[in-house]
This record gives sequence, structure tokens and C-alpha cells, in this order.
Amino acid sequence: MEKKGLSCYSLKGNLCYTPNKDEFCIIENGYVVCKDGRCAGVYETLPEKYKNFPCMDYGDRLILPGLVDLHVHAPQYAFRGIGMDLELIDWLNTHTFPEEQKYKELDYAKRAYRIFGEDFIQSATTRACIFGTIHTEATLWLMEFLEKAGMSAYVGKVNMDRNSPDNLCEAGWRQAAEDTEKWILQCKNLKQVKPILTPRFIPSCSDELMEALSKLQKRFHLPVQSHLSENLGEIQWVRELCPDTSCYGEAYDKYQMFGGECPTIMAHCVHSTEEEQKMMKEQGVFVAHCPESNTNLSSGIAPIRRYLENGICVGLGSDVAAGTSLSMFRVMAMAIQCSKLRWRLTDQRLAPLTVSEAFYLATKGGGAFFGKVGSFEQGYEFDALVINDEEIRSPRKLTVKERIERLLYLAEDRHIIAKYISGREIFSKEA
Amino acid sequence: MEKKGLSCYSLKGNLCYTPNKDEFCIIENGYVVCKDGRCAGVYETLPEKYKNFPCMDYGDRLILPGLVDLHVHAPQYAFRGIGMDLELIDWLNTHTFPEEQKYKELDYAKRAYRIFGEDFIQSATTRACIFGTIHTEATLWLMEFLEKAGMSAYVGKVNMDRNSPDNLCEAGWRQAAEDTEKWILQCKNLKQVKPILTPRFIPSCSDELMEALSKLQKRFHLPVQSHLSENLGEIQWVRELCPDTSCYGEAYDKYQMFGGECPTIMAHCVHSTEEEQKMMKEQGVFVAHCPESNTNLSSGIAPIRRYLENGICVGLGSDVAAGTSLSMFRVMAMAIQCSKLRWRLTDQRLAPLTVSEAFYLATKGGGAFFGKVGSFEQGYEFDALVINDEEIRSPRKLTVKERIERLLYLAEDRHIIAKYISGREIFSKEA
Repeated sequence: MEKKGLSCYSLKGNLCYTPNKDEFCIIENGYVVCKDGRCAGVYETLPEKYKNFPCMDYGDRLILPGLVDLHVHAPQYAFRGIGMDLELIDWLNTHTFPEEQKYKELDYAKRAYRIFGEDFIQSATTRACIFGTIHTEATLWLMEFLEKAGMSAYVGKVNMDRNSPDNLCEAGWRQAAEDTEKWILQCKNLKQVKPILTPRFIPSCSDELMEALSKLQKRFHLPVQSHLSENLGEIQWVRELCPDTSCYGEAYDKYQMFGGECPTIMAHCVHSTEEEQKMMKEQGVFVAHCPESNTNLSSGIAPIRRYLENGICVGLGSDVAAGTSLSMFRVMAMAIQCSKLRWRLTDQRLAPLTVSEAFYLATKGGGAFFGKVGSFEQGYEFDALVINDEEIRSPRKLTVKERIERLLYLAEDRHIIAKYISGREIFSKEA
Repeated sequence: MEKKGLSCYSLKGNLCYTPNKDEFCIIENGYVVCKDGRCAGVYETLPEKYKNFPCMDYGDRLILPGLVDLHVHAPQYAFRGIGMDLELIDWLNTHTFPEEQKYKELDYAKRAYRIFGEDFIQSATTRACIFGTIHTEATLWLMEFLEKAGMSAYVGKVNMDRNSPDNLCEAGWRQAAEDTEKWILQCKNLKQVKPILTPRFIPSCSDELMEALSKLQKRFHLPVQSHLSENLGEIQWVRELCPDTSCYGEAYDKYQMFGGECPTIMAHCVHSTEEEQKMMKEQGVFVAHCPESNTNLSSGIAPIRRYLENGICVGLGSDVAAGTSLSMFRVMAMAIQCSKLRWRLTDQRLAPLTVSEAFYLATKGGGAFFGKVGSFEQGYEFDALVINDEEIRSPRKLTVKERIERLLYLAEDRHIIAKYISGREIFSKEA
């Protein structure tokens, strides 16, 4: 059945989603209805009014909301799984910056981004916030590639004008601001893949550049993504660079790029102080929790249970290539695993994350940054995955909940047999 | 080319092994020679005397020693990835014991063990130490299944006669000892898959049973596998059960089943005291380090760097199903990741494990339990994997060492295109 462009239909299968962090909502052999790209509800039996919609019957397959990756670096995909023996700043200088320099050459960028893009499309991720490099051409090429495939994402041309290697440093803040404005204007024909302002992190952005980006933010009403309180050495460096701020977050807030009117994602927040947490909460800053990255770079384990208790918005990020895999299933597993180690080794007041909490963070939690995304509740954008888990064999008859839990640990991309974003079919491997 | 039973040949490709824990030995486009099931060395150009051996040219593929899994529970494979929200004792009672009871029925056991066995054969593991259940028939069936496939392993019929649910408890120590003796005798025709004495752990074995097993150990010269100092609650329980011992290890040593004349593997050793470590070292007890399991059950992180410094024998274990995957590549990655978190959160005197150290532990480190296993040095048993990593695409030209490193994080079983054990071809997917 040709479903591309089809905006009204239903999918039949074993539905699973988390309306809140403590509750799996599971409907076996149920229907989820897509109407004009949005979810028109889940049903045990299909209501009369939807019976004229085409229905794709996925039998015993699992159907879940698409997964949301709040933090991923597209150019770093080229060296995923390599060079995992350094901490943040050394890792940036040794592995990351030399790779990102290459994206000045559009030919290299195309070759690299095609690999990233193709794998990304086949992954479980339906929405993402992506870092590019400082290079406008390459970043635009990536955005157009993803748009053509039907993906939904925010993508950022990165800004950095200080403390960066010569060949990965914008030529002064004025030029950086001009290039960024031009890039924003060039994005205007893109519909699903949108620009997001992306100061790399405080150490690589001058005060003047931050001021200029802040003006662009206000003029174009763009969201912002950056890094926050990831590594102890980095935090100390920010303290030296910004002696007038009382916490790292304030260094963004000074330029009104820390929530409030400005939708903001901050990756990591491993070592956020009480004060920083308070600001994040009050100003609605999203935390992109990247547990595998924080492990690989020996950064630590963010106290996600505390953030949830304090009402801070949290989603998950793969943070490729400090995280090694695009799989948001693996990120969910790592979020649980790291929370257990944190509980055991550091602080038994903060209980480990549960399966439903990790699932919620990877769907509705992070999805909230995109609006009504990450759930099968009525009115949510219709982002869905269909999973064939037959290959993960067991002699037992498993419940749907058990099948969902093991996906966190055992799912591979090839188990995803169909993917829908805002009702558009991205791919479908079975009839 | 039909290679089954062929005992003299060479493989050509990119060879990689760790003669010691600090050194990758890499030979690009080299030859590793198998002579009568043992390694006759690695060569940049093939010596004259081996030119009449058939040569399998694997081109740009990676060729590594087979991986060694020192601790895995075959019956638990049925619920891998499920029920990861409990600590050890509750997890055993809720998930593990109810599953293991089912293996009394040979029909169920065959169905379950066939799934485990088939997946295990396709995995990167060439040698393993496997727990069955208390059931002799089922355990023998598994052993014969693996033997037929050409696998090499120690498999244990589990012993437990106290503190166990009624339907997973042997009928007194006498019966347990009789059944175990009978099982040992029934194994005598097996050549590659051999019996190993397997008292589950101290809490589930009476003094009388331990005494009886000790006699069997001396009579049949069998190795022993069990669990040690995994979880704080468990350790406290052992302290109460054995008030006359000064550490958990001594509770095995009392019965001469803790190294010395008795080759012994102890899984976990997360919380081993100085005294216990000293005994392990002096008596050559092998630690099966199971980092994913210790994470999933919130047990903690074993100080592997300390064990290595102290000269204790260490290998790695998947510990399915407290570990979720049979992949020893993932276990290597988790060993590194956990060592980084331990360094960051607990003790900065113990540096994180390096890639070569993790590789060494999964090959030669654990392999030493089987004799000369886990290396391509001359005289080692010819256990090898051939990996096609083309599908892990990169725009870069990667070194062999980089390709090896990313396998830890990204390898999937289907990337393994050939597997050899003691010179026997287990499978080969490409000509």
C-alpha cells in the first residue's frame, strides 16, 4: 500500500506509550488513528467514524511513539566509538575539532552527512536537535537532506569565535553574526527541518558574539541549544572566563539565552548547582540528559531523579560521538543503568529511574520541546515506530510490557519496520 | 571451500590480539597460521613451510582471537532484558527461580536451550563457563547441543539444597551429591563441552552439600564456578550463615573449592575485602567481572584496576540474564564505562580501564582459565573471529586499531562472518 503523503489512516498492533512518567498505557491489538498528521486517539475497537480510513494491520508488532534525541552532533558521527579515552576538553582538541574542520569542504561534508543522514533515517529517532559545524554550506546541505527524507529536526550552524583552533574558528564576532543571519534566511524554505541558534559553549563564544546571537534570537524567535555544566574542568574554565556570573547557566542567561522567552536546550547538566537548577526550572530550560556520553568522557552522572522531582523539563540525548550510538533505545537503557550506579555509589536518596520513566523521557519528556510530540494522546503529532521483535526469541509468552522493556537493552535498528513523522511515512519495510 | 575438520590452514586479513594487557599487536594484511588446531604464529609474509596450507583470504576484514565469557546462565536467556528493576536476592526470587524451575520439563528446556544455543553459536564467544539449572537431563541436553555445534565450554549442573523455593531445591545433600556424580559420569563422552562443579552460591548450599561437592572435586579433578561478594545484602546473609568465616571467600575455601589445586571461577567480586583479594591472588582464583550485571542489579562496580595491580586473574562475563546480552563486545565496553564512572564517583586512585586492557580481559585474561587460549601467540589454541565491519560506515580511512575500538561499542553479531574454535570452523558466512 502506498502511504506516502497519506494523512488519514489507522495503524493496528500492540500500542504502548507513557501519558505520564509513571504509567505505561498499553493496548493490545489496538488502533491508533492518524488524522491530518495528528493523533486522533487510541482505541480497542475502531470507532465507526474512522472505519473508512485505510488501516495498516501490523499484527503482533509493537507500535510506539517515535523517539526524541535532544542532543546529537552530526559531524562527529564519522568517528563514533573511537577515542573514548579522554575527558571533555582533551577529547574536543584531539578528536572533535580536527574532524569538524573537514566540513569546510562541501565534498567531504556531503559524503559524511550522507552516512549520518541515512543511518539517522533508519534509526528510532523521529525528532532531534542536531549540532552541525560552523560551516553554513555543509549545515544547509544536511538540513536539506533530512528535509527531503521527511525528518523533523532542529539543526544548528555552530558558533565559536574564541578558544578554538584557527581552522575551526569564525573570523570574529561580526562575521560570525553575519554568517549566522544569512544562514537563518537561507533556511526559510525548509518546513520540517528548522534552524536553532547554537553557540557551542561559553568557552568558545566571546561576549560580543553572545550579544549578537541574542539579538538574532529576538529578531527571528529561534530556539537555542548549547552545553552546560558537563565536566568539572570545563565548569572551572567558565568560572575563570566569566568571573561576574555565579553559575555557568547565568553566562547564557546574561544574554537572555537561557529559557524564558527563548526555548532552550542545555545538554548534560551533570554538575548543575542548586542555583542553576532553580533557574532552569523557573525559565523552562530543557535538560538533554546524555548518559552514555557522560560515562564515556568520565564526566559523571546527572541527578535526573532530582531534576524530575524539582519539575525541570528533561529529555534524552545520544550525544554522538561522545555517545557511540544513535540508538535512543540504548540511551534509555544507559539512563536507567547510570541512575542505578549513581544510587549505589553516590546518593541513596535518589532512586534509580524506572523503565516507564526512561521511556517517558525519550518520548513525551523530550518531545515537549517540539510541542505536542511523543505520545499517542489526542492532538499529538503522529510520530510512530513499528517494531518487529520476533528475532529476539524467547520460549516464554511475553507481555507487551516485557517486550517493551527488553527493547531498551536489545533493540537494533533493523527491528524497526516502519516509521512515521507527523503522519508522513518515512519508511516501511513490510506490507 | 569446505573447511570443516581441516586442521592446517592460514587466514589472511587484519590481525589484532593483545599479548599483554597494555599492547595491541596489529598486523595489517597478515597471516595467522593454524596447525593441528593450534596457532603456529602470525606473519607479515607467509613462511615457505606454510605455503602448502590452504589460505582463506579475508581481505580487509578484521581477524581477532575468539572472546571468552567466564560467566553466563543459559536458562536465564529466556528473560534477558526483562525485570531489571530489582536487586540480587529479590531478582532471584521474582524472575530467576520461577524460570529455572521450568527446566525440570525436558521439552521446555529443549525449546529454551535451542534458542540460547543457536544465538550463542552466532555470537562472538568461543569459550564459556555456563550455569545450567539443578536438572541433570536438561543440562546434559544443552551440553550435547553445544558439543555438536563444535563449541568449547564448561557447563555446570547447578547445586542448591537450601534457601531455595521447593520446586527448585535438590532433595537433600545426599541426593544432590548422587545426582551430581551420575551427571559427571554421563558427561564422559563429551570432548569439548565439559562438566564444572557449580554450587550456586553459599546461601543455597548446605555445609554437607559443600563437603560432598568437595569430595567429587577431588575425585574427578573438576573445576568449580560460583558467585562471590556480588551484593551487600548477599554478603551480610553469608556472614550470618557462616559466622565462623572471616570473609565470603573463606566459606568456599573451607571446602577447598577456592583455587589452589581446584581451578575456580568466582563471578562478580564487587565488594571483596583485602583479605578475600589476598586469598584469590595466592590461590589463583579467577574473577569473572560482569559489569553490565553489576550495573543492572545495582550491585556496584568491582575495582578491576586494583585486582590487575594485585596480580589477580581476571576475565569478563556477560552474566546473562542479569546482563542483557551475550555480546562480549558490549561487556568490554561496559567494563571500560563502569571503570570510568568508578574513577569519577568513587576513587580517583584507580584509573579507568583502557581499550587494550578490556580486550585483553575478554581474550587472554579469561582465556587463561582454559589453558593457552585467547591469543594468536604460538602454541595457543586456534580460536578466531572474522569481522566484517563495512556496515559501520565512516567517511574516514580508519586504522585497524580504531576499527577494533569501535567494535566494542558498535559490533553486532551479524558482523561476525566466521568463527573458529581449536581450529574447527564453527561457521563461515562468506566464501
